[in-house]
Amino acid sequence: MAPTSETLTAERILEATEEVLRRHGPAKATVVDVARALGVSHGSVYRHFRTKAALREAVTKRWLDRTSGELSGIAAADRDPEARLRDWLTALFAAKRRKAGDDPELFATYTVLTGENGTAVSEHIADLTAQLTRVIQAGAETGSFTAADPEATARAVFQATARFHDPGYAQEWRQEGVEADFEAVVDLLVRGLRA
Amino acid sequence: MAPTSETLTAERILEATEEVLRRHGPAKATVVDVARALGVSHGSVYRHFRTKAALREAVTKRWLDRTSGELSGIAAADRDPEARLRDWLTALFAAKRRKAGDDPELFATYTVLTGENGTAVSEHIADLTAQLTRVIQAGAETGSFTAADPEATARAVFQATARFHDPGYAQEWRQEGVEADFEAVVDLLVRGLRA
Repeated sequence: MAPTSETLTAERILEATEEVLRRHGPAKATVVDVARALGVSHGSVYRHFRTKAALREAVTKRWLDRTSGELSGIAAADRDPEARLRDWLTALFAAKRRKAGDDPELFATYTVLTGENGTAVSEHIADLTAQLTRVIQAGAETGSFTAADPEATARAVFQATARFHDPGYAQEWRQEGVEADFEAVVDLLVRGLRA
Repeated sequence: MAPTSETLTAERILEATEEVLRRHGPAKATVVDVARALGVSHGSVYRHFRTKAALREAVTKRWLDRTSGELSGIAAADRDPEARLRDWLTALFAAKRRKAGDDPELFATYTVLTGENGTAVSEHIADLTAQLTRVIQAGAETGSFTAADPEATARAVFQATARFHDPGYAQEWRQEGVEADFEAVVDLLVRGLRA
Protein backbone atom coordinates (compact mmCIF):
# COMPACT_ATOMS: atom_id res chain seq x y z
CA MET A 1 0.00 0.00 0.00
CA ALA A 2 1.34 3.43 -0.87
CA PRO A 3 2.29 5.64 2.12
CA THR A 4 -0.04 8.38 0.86
CA SER A 5 -3.19 6.43 1.73
CA GLU A 6 -1.77 5.22 5.06
CA THR A 7 -1.17 8.78 6.22
CA LEU A 8 -4.36 10.20 4.81
CA THR A 9 -5.74 12.28 7.68
CA ALA A 10 -8.73 14.62 7.62
CA GLU A 11 -6.28 17.50 8.02
CA ARG A 12 -4.31 16.44 4.93
CA ILE A 13 -7.52 16.20 2.94
CA LEU A 14 -8.56 19.67 4.07
CA GLU A 15 -5.18 21.11 3.14
CA ALA A 16 -5.51 19.60 -0.31
CA THR A 17 -9.07 20.90 -0.56
CA GLU A 18 -7.90 24.42 0.18
CA GLU A 19 -5.20 24.05 -2.46
CA VAL A 20 -7.83 22.90 -5.00
CA LEU A 21 -10.03 25.88 -4.03
CA ARG A 22 -7.08 28.23 -4.40
CA ARG A 23 -6.33 26.96 -7.89
CA HIS A 24 -9.77 26.38 -9.29
CA GLY A 25 -12.21 28.53 -7.30
CA PRO A 26 -15.40 27.60 -5.46
CA ALA A 27 -17.05 25.66 -8.29
CA LYS A 28 -14.45 22.91 -7.91
CA ALA A 29 -13.37 21.10 -4.74
CA THR A 30 -15.48 17.99 -5.12
CA VAL A 31 -14.35 14.77 -3.48
CA VAL A 32 -13.11 13.53 -6.87
CA ASP A 33 -11.01 16.69 -7.48
CA VAL A 34 -9.46 16.45 -4.05
CA ALA A 35 -8.74 12.73 -4.33
CA ARG A 36 -7.05 13.40 -7.68
CA ALA A 37 -4.91 16.18 -6.16
CA LEU A 38 -3.83 13.79 -3.39
CA GLY A 39 -3.26 10.87 -5.75
CA VAL A 40 -5.65 8.65 -3.78
CA SER A 41 -8.94 6.97 -4.61
CA HIS A 42 -12.09 8.95 -3.93
CA GLY A 43 -13.15 6.13 -1.61
CA SER A 44 -10.30 7.07 0.75
CA VAL A 45 -11.54 10.65 0.88
CA TYR A 46 -15.13 9.51 1.43
CA ARG A 47 -14.02 7.59 4.51
CA HIS A 48 -13.27 11.00 6.10
CA PHE A 49 -15.94 13.15 4.41
CA ARG A 50 -19.07 11.36 3.36
CA THR A 51 -20.37 14.04 1.01
CA LYS A 52 -19.09 16.98 -0.99
CA ALA A 53 -21.18 19.20 1.32
CA ALA A 54 -19.44 17.78 4.41
CA LEU A 55 -16.04 18.38 2.83
CA ARG A 56 -16.90 21.96 1.89
CA GLU A 57 -18.33 22.65 5.34
CA ALA A 58 -15.21 21.25 7.03
CA VAL A 59 -12.82 23.31 4.89
CA THR A 60 -14.89 26.44 5.61
CA LYS A 61 -14.80 25.71 9.34
CA ARG A 62 -11.02 25.20 9.18
CA TRP A 63 -10.59 28.57 7.44
CA LEU A 64 -12.73 30.33 10.06
CA ASP A 65 -11.10 28.48 12.97
CA ARG A 66 -7.70 29.80 11.94
CA THR A 67 -8.88 33.30 12.93
CA SER A 68 -10.53 32.28 16.20
CA GLY A 69 -7.46 30.18 17.06
CA GLU A 70 -5.18 33.20 16.58
CA LEU A 71 -7.35 35.31 18.88
CA SER A 72 -8.03 32.89 21.70
CA GLY A 73 -4.65 33.55 23.35
CA ILE A 74 -5.36 37.28 23.56
CA ALA A 75 -8.79 36.69 25.11
CA ALA A 76 -7.42 34.25 27.68
CA ALA A 77 -4.30 36.22 28.74
CA ASP A 78 -4.11 37.38 32.32
CA ARG A 79 -3.85 41.11 31.55
CA ASP A 80 -5.73 44.36 31.98
CA PRO A 81 -9.16 43.74 30.38
CA GLU A 82 -9.24 47.05 28.50
CA ALA A 83 -5.85 46.39 26.87
CA ARG A 84 -6.96 42.84 26.10
CA LEU A 85 -10.18 44.09 24.51
CA ARG A 86 -8.36 46.64 22.34
CA ASP A 87 -5.73 44.08 21.30
CA TRP A 88 -8.37 41.48 20.53
CA LEU A 89 -10.41 43.80 18.32
CA THR A 90 -7.22 45.02 16.61
CA ALA A 91 -6.08 41.43 16.00
CA LEU A 92 -9.50 40.46 14.63
CA PHE A 93 -9.48 43.37 12.19
CA ALA A 94 -5.86 42.60 11.20
CA ALA A 95 -6.60 38.89 10.66
CA LYS A 96 -9.64 39.60 8.46
CA ARG A 97 -7.82 42.27 6.47
CA ARG A 98 -4.89 39.95 5.93
CA LYS A 99 -7.17 37.19 4.66
CA ALA A 100 -8.93 39.61 2.31
CA GLY A 101 -5.80 41.41 1.14
CA ASP A 102 -3.12 38.72 0.87
CA ASP A 103 -5.03 36.32 -1.32
CA PRO A 104 -8.14 38.05 -2.73
CA GLU A 105 -9.08 35.11 -4.95
CA LEU A 106 -9.06 32.60 -2.10
CA PHE A 107 -10.97 35.13 -0.02
CA ALA A 108 -13.62 35.44 -2.75
CA THR A 109 -13.80 31.64 -2.89
CA TYR A 110 -14.34 31.41 0.87
CA THR A 111 -16.95 34.16 0.64
CA VAL A 112 -18.94 31.82 -1.62
CA LEU A 113 -18.35 28.92 0.79
CA THR A 114 -19.38 30.88 3.89
CA GLY A 115 -22.56 31.85 2.02
CA GLU A 116 -23.30 28.13 1.62
CA ASN A 117 -22.33 27.10 5.16
CA GLY A 118 -24.46 29.14 7.53
CA THR A 119 -23.84 26.77 10.44
CA ALA A 120 -20.04 27.08 10.22
CA VAL A 121 -20.42 30.87 10.17
CA SER A 122 -22.81 30.93 13.15
CA GLU A 123 -20.40 28.73 15.11
CA HIS A 124 -17.53 31.05 14.21
CA ILE A 125 -19.48 34.09 15.43
CA ALA A 126 -20.44 32.20 18.60
CA ASP A 127 -16.74 31.30 19.20
CA LEU A 128 -15.61 34.89 18.76
CA THR A 129 -18.44 36.27 20.92
CA ALA A 130 -17.55 33.75 23.65
CA GLN A 131 -13.93 35.00 23.62
CA LEU A 132 -15.17 38.58 23.84
CA THR A 133 -17.55 37.65 26.67
CA ARG A 134 -14.59 36.28 28.62
CA VAL A 135 -12.72 39.59 28.32
CA ILE A 136 -15.77 41.69 29.24
CA GLN A 137 -16.57 39.36 32.15
CA ALA A 138 -13.00 39.84 33.41
CA GLY A 139 -13.43 43.62 33.13
CA ALA A 140 -16.72 43.48 35.02
CA GLU A 141 -15.05 41.43 37.79
CA THR A 142 -12.13 43.82 38.22
CA GLY A 143 -14.49 46.81 38.04
CA SER A 144 -12.89 48.26 34.87
CA PHE A 145 -16.11 47.67 32.91
CA THR A 146 -19.77 48.07 33.74
CA ALA A 147 -21.58 45.13 32.17
CA ALA A 148 -24.63 43.68 33.88
CA ASP A 149 -24.88 41.03 31.17
CA PRO A 150 -21.36 40.38 29.74
CA GLU A 151 -22.69 38.10 27.01
CA ALA A 152 -25.17 40.69 25.71
CA THR A 153 -22.49 43.38 25.96
CA ALA A 154 -20.00 41.20 24.04
CA ARG A 155 -22.61 40.73 21.33
CA ALA A 156 -23.13 44.51 21.17
CA VAL A 157 -19.37 45.14 20.89
CA PHE A 158 -19.06 42.50 18.18
CA GLN A 159 -21.97 43.93 16.20
CA ALA A 160 -20.82 47.54 16.66
CA THR A 161 -17.41 46.65 15.16
CA ALA A 162 -18.86 44.69 12.21
CA ARG A 163 -17.48 47.21 9.74
CA PHE A 164 -14.01 46.04 10.80
CA HIS A 165 -14.49 42.29 10.62
CA ASP A 166 -17.53 41.45 8.51
CA PRO A 167 -16.16 40.29 5.11
CA GLY A 168 -18.99 42.24 3.45
CA TYR A 169 -16.91 45.37 4.21
CA ALA A 170 -13.64 44.00 2.76
CA GLN A 171 -13.65 46.69 0.03
CA GLU A 172 -13.66 49.43 2.68
CA TRP A 173 -10.62 47.99 4.46
CA ARG A 174 -8.36 49.28 1.71
CA GLN A 175 -9.62 52.84 1.97
CA GLU A 176 -7.64 55.64 3.49
CA GLY A 177 -8.72 56.57 7.00
CA VAL A 178 -10.02 53.12 7.91
CA GLU A 179 -7.60 52.80 10.87
CA ALA A 180 -8.74 56.16 12.26
CA ASP A 181 -12.37 55.04 11.85
CA PHE A 182 -11.58 51.82 13.68
CA GLU A 183 -9.87 53.67 16.55
CA ALA A 184 -12.81 56.09 16.88
CA VAL A 185 -15.35 53.25 17.14
CA VAL A 186 -13.23 51.27 19.61
CA ASP A 187 -12.59 54.37 21.77
CA LEU A 188 -16.30 55.13 21.93
CA LEU A 189 -17.13 51.53 22.88
CA VAL A 190 -14.41 51.38 25.52
CA ARG A 191 -15.71 54.63 27.01
CA GLY A 192 -19.18 53.08 27.08
CA LEU A 193 -17.86 49.97 28.82
CA ARG A 194 -15.97 51.99 31.41
CA ALA A 195 -18.98 54.18 32.23
CA MET B 1 -50.16 70.11 -27.32
CA ALA B 2 -51.26 67.51 -24.81
CA PRO B 3 -51.21 68.62 -21.14
CA THR B 4 -48.97 65.66 -20.27
CA SER B 5 -45.95 67.13 -22.02
CA GLU B 6 -46.66 70.64 -20.72
CA THR B 7 -46.58 69.42 -17.10
CA LEU B 8 -43.66 67.03 -17.54
CA THR B 9 -41.47 67.83 -14.53
CA ALA B 10 -38.34 66.00 -13.42
CA GLU B 11 -40.31 64.79 -10.38
CA ARG B 12 -43.04 63.28 -12.59
CA ILE B 13 -40.40 61.51 -14.67
CA LEU B 14 -38.76 60.12 -11.53
CA GLU B 15 -42.12 58.91 -10.20
CA ALA B 16 -42.72 57.12 -13.48
CA THR B 17 -39.18 55.71 -13.39
CA GLU B 18 -39.78 54.26 -9.96
CA GLU B 19 -43.02 52.74 -11.21
CA VAL B 20 -41.18 51.17 -14.17
CA LEU B 21 -38.51 49.82 -11.78
CA ARG B 22 -41.20 48.43 -9.50
CA ARG B 23 -42.85 46.59 -12.37
CA HIS B 24 -39.87 45.46 -14.39
CA GLY B 25 -36.84 45.41 -12.08
CA PRO B 26 -33.44 47.06 -12.43
CA ALA B 27 -32.66 45.88 -15.97
CA LYS B 28 -35.39 48.17 -17.32
CA ALA B 29 -35.92 51.87 -16.66
CA THR B 30 -34.28 53.25 -19.76
CA VAL B 31 -35.36 56.64 -21.04
CA VAL B 32 -37.45 54.92 -23.73
CA ASP B 33 -39.27 52.71 -21.17
CA VAL B 34 -40.05 55.70 -19.00
CA ALA B 35 -41.20 57.87 -21.90
CA ARG B 36 -43.53 55.07 -22.99
CA ALA B 37 -44.95 54.75 -19.46
CA LEU B 38 -45.64 58.50 -19.44
CA GLY B 39 -47.05 58.55 -22.97
CA VAL B 40 -44.51 61.18 -24.06
CA SER B 41 -41.68 61.21 -26.59
CA HIS B 42 -38.29 60.15 -25.34
CA GLY B 43 -37.02 63.58 -26.42
CA SER B 44 -39.16 65.13 -23.67
CA VAL B 45 -37.55 62.89 -21.07
CA TYR B 46 -34.07 63.61 -22.43
CA ARG B 47 -34.67 67.34 -21.87
CA HIS B 48 -34.67 66.55 -18.12
CA PHE B 49 -32.22 63.62 -18.02
CA ARG B 50 -29.62 63.56 -20.73
CA THR B 51 -28.61 59.92 -20.31
CA LYS B 52 -29.99 56.71 -18.92
CA ALA B 53 -27.22 56.86 -16.29
CA ALA B 54 -28.35 60.34 -15.20
CA LEU B 55 -31.94 59.14 -14.91
CA ARG B 56 -30.95 56.10 -12.86
CA GLU B 57 -28.71 58.19 -10.62
CA ALA B 58 -31.50 60.71 -10.02
CA VAL B 59 -34.08 58.05 -9.15
CA THR B 60 -31.59 56.44 -6.74
CA LYS B 61 -30.91 59.79 -5.10
CA ARG B 62 -34.67 60.42 -4.74
CA TRP B 63 -35.11 57.04 -3.05
CA LEU B 64 -32.26 57.71 -0.62
CA ASP B 65 -33.39 61.31 0.01
CA ARG B 66 -36.77 60.08 1.21
CA THR B 67 -35.02 58.54 4.24
CA SER B 68 -32.79 61.52 5.00
CA GLY B 69 -35.79 63.84 4.55
CA GLU B 70 -37.78 61.86 7.14
CA LEU B 71 -34.93 62.10 9.63
CA SER B 72 -33.91 65.72 9.26
CA GLY B 73 -36.73 66.97 11.50
CA ILE B 74 -35.58 64.74 14.35
CA ALA B 75 -31.98 65.93 14.03
CA ALA B 76 -33.00 69.61 13.94
CA ALA B 77 -35.55 69.55 16.81
CA ASP B 78 -34.79 71.67 19.87
CA ARG B 79 -34.80 68.78 22.37
CA ASP B 80 -32.52 66.88 24.73
CA PRO B 81 -29.63 65.62 22.53
CA GLU B 82 -29.63 62.12 24.00
CA ALA B 83 -33.35 61.64 23.29
CA ARG B 84 -32.83 63.11 19.84
CA LEU B 85 -29.94 60.74 19.14
CA ARG B 86 -31.92 57.69 20.25
CA ASP B 87 -34.98 58.75 18.25
CA TRP B 88 -32.89 59.48 15.18
CA LEU B 89 -31.15 56.07 15.24
CA THR B 90 -34.49 54.35 15.89
CA ALA B 91 -36.13 56.22 13.02
CA LEU B 92 -33.23 55.38 10.68
CA PHE B 93 -33.48 51.68 11.51
CA ALA B 94 -37.29 51.78 11.15
CA ALA B 95 -37.12 53.57 7.78
CA LYS B 96 -34.60 51.09 6.36
CA ARG B 97 -36.51 48.09 7.69
CA ARG B 98 -39.73 49.44 6.22
CA LYS B 99 -38.11 49.90 2.81
CA ALA B 100 -36.67 46.37 2.92
CA GLY B 101 -39.77 44.70 4.33
CA ASP B 102 -42.71 46.45 2.68
CA ASP B 103 -41.61 46.02 -0.89
CA PRO B 104 -38.73 43.53 -1.07
CA GLU B 105 -38.64 43.51 -4.88
CA LEU B 106 -38.30 47.28 -5.17
CA PHE B 107 -35.70 47.12 -2.38
CA ALA B 108 -33.71 44.52 -4.35
CA THR B 109 -33.98 46.72 -7.43
CA TYR B 110 -32.65 49.72 -5.54
CA THR B 111 -29.86 47.56 -4.10
CA VAL B 112 -28.70 47.03 -7.69
CA LEU B 113 -29.04 50.77 -8.40
CA THR B 114 -27.15 51.86 -5.29
CA GLY B 115 -24.38 49.44 -6.34
CA GLU B 116 -24.16 51.35 -9.64
CA ASN B 117 -24.40 54.83 -8.14
CA GLY B 118 -21.60 55.18 -5.64
CA THR B 119 -21.81 58.97 -5.65
CA ALA B 120 -25.50 59.03 -4.69
CA VAL B 121 -24.73 56.62 -1.84
CA SER B 122 -21.74 58.64 -0.60
CA GLU B 123 -23.87 61.79 -0.62
CA HIS B 124 -26.60 59.98 1.30
CA ILE B 125 -24.11 58.83 3.96
CA ALA B 126 -22.66 62.35 4.11
CA ASP B 127 -26.21 63.78 4.59
CA LEU B 128 -27.00 61.35 7.39
CA THR B 129 -23.64 61.86 9.09
CA ALA B 130 -24.14 65.64 8.93
CA GLN B 131 -27.52 65.25 10.70
CA LEU B 132 -25.88 63.08 13.33
CA THR B 133 -23.03 65.59 13.74
CA ARG B 134 -25.61 68.28 14.46
CA VAL B 135 -27.12 66.21 17.31
CA ILE B 136 -23.74 65.30 18.79
CA GLN B 137 -22.56 68.90 18.49
CA ALA B 138 -25.68 69.99 20.41
CA GLY B 139 -24.91 67.39 23.09
CA ALA B 140 -21.30 68.58 23.35
CA GLU B 141 -22.53 72.18 23.75
CA THR B 142 -24.98 71.36 26.54
CA GLY B 143 -22.41 69.11 28.21
CA SER B 144 -24.52 65.92 27.86
CA PHE B 145 -21.93 64.42 25.53
CA THR B 146 -18.13 64.41 25.49
CA ALA B 147 -17.07 64.80 21.88
CA ALA B 148 -13.89 66.70 21.06
CA ASP B 149 -14.56 66.20 17.35
CA PRO B 150 -18.34 65.87 16.81
CA GLU B 151 -17.95 65.01 13.13
CA ALA B 152 -15.54 62.12 13.82
CA THR B 153 -17.79 60.95 16.67
CA ALA B 154 -20.86 61.08 14.41
CA ARG B 155 -19.00 58.98 11.86
CA ALA B 156 -18.12 56.45 14.60
CA VAL B 157 -21.76 56.27 15.77
CA PHE B 158 -22.96 55.83 12.20
CA GLN B 159 -20.43 53.07 11.50
CA ALA B 160 -21.05 51.32 14.84
CA THR B 161 -24.77 51.09 14.03
CA ALA B 162 -24.25 49.85 10.45
CA ARG B 163 -25.89 46.53 11.27
CA PHE B 164 -29.12 48.46 11.77
CA HIS B 165 -29.12 50.58 8.63
CA ASP B 166 -26.75 49.12 6.04
CA PRO B 167 -28.96 47.34 3.46
CA GLY B 168 -26.38 44.53 3.37
CA TYR B 169 -27.88 43.42 6.70
CA ALA B 170 -31.52 43.49 5.54
CA GLN B 171 -31.83 39.69 6.02
CA GLU B 172 -30.92 40.07 9.71
CA TRP B 173 -33.63 42.69 10.31
CA ARG B 174 -36.30 40.00 10.22
CA GLN B 175 -34.62 37.86 12.86
CA GLU B 176 -35.88 37.54 16.38
CA GLY B 177 -33.94 39.57 18.93
CA VAL B 178 -32.84 42.27 16.48
CA GLU B 179 -34.57 45.03 18.52
CA ALA B 180 -32.77 43.90 21.69
CA ASP B 181 -29.47 43.88 19.75
CA PHE B 182 -30.19 47.38 18.50
CA GLU B 183 -30.97 48.65 22.01
CA ALA B 184 -27.79 47.09 23.42
CA VAL B 185 -25.59 48.77 20.78
CA VAL B 186 -27.32 52.16 21.18
CA ASP B 187 -27.09 51.99 25.00
CA LEU B 188 -23.39 51.23 24.85
CA LEU B 189 -22.75 54.10 22.41
CA VAL B 190 -24.82 56.56 24.47
CA ARG B 191 -22.85 55.56 27.57
CA GLY B 192 -19.66 56.19 25.62
CA LEU B 193 -20.89 59.62 24.52
CA ARG B 194 -21.91 60.59 28.04
CA ALA B 195 -18.57 59.56 29.52
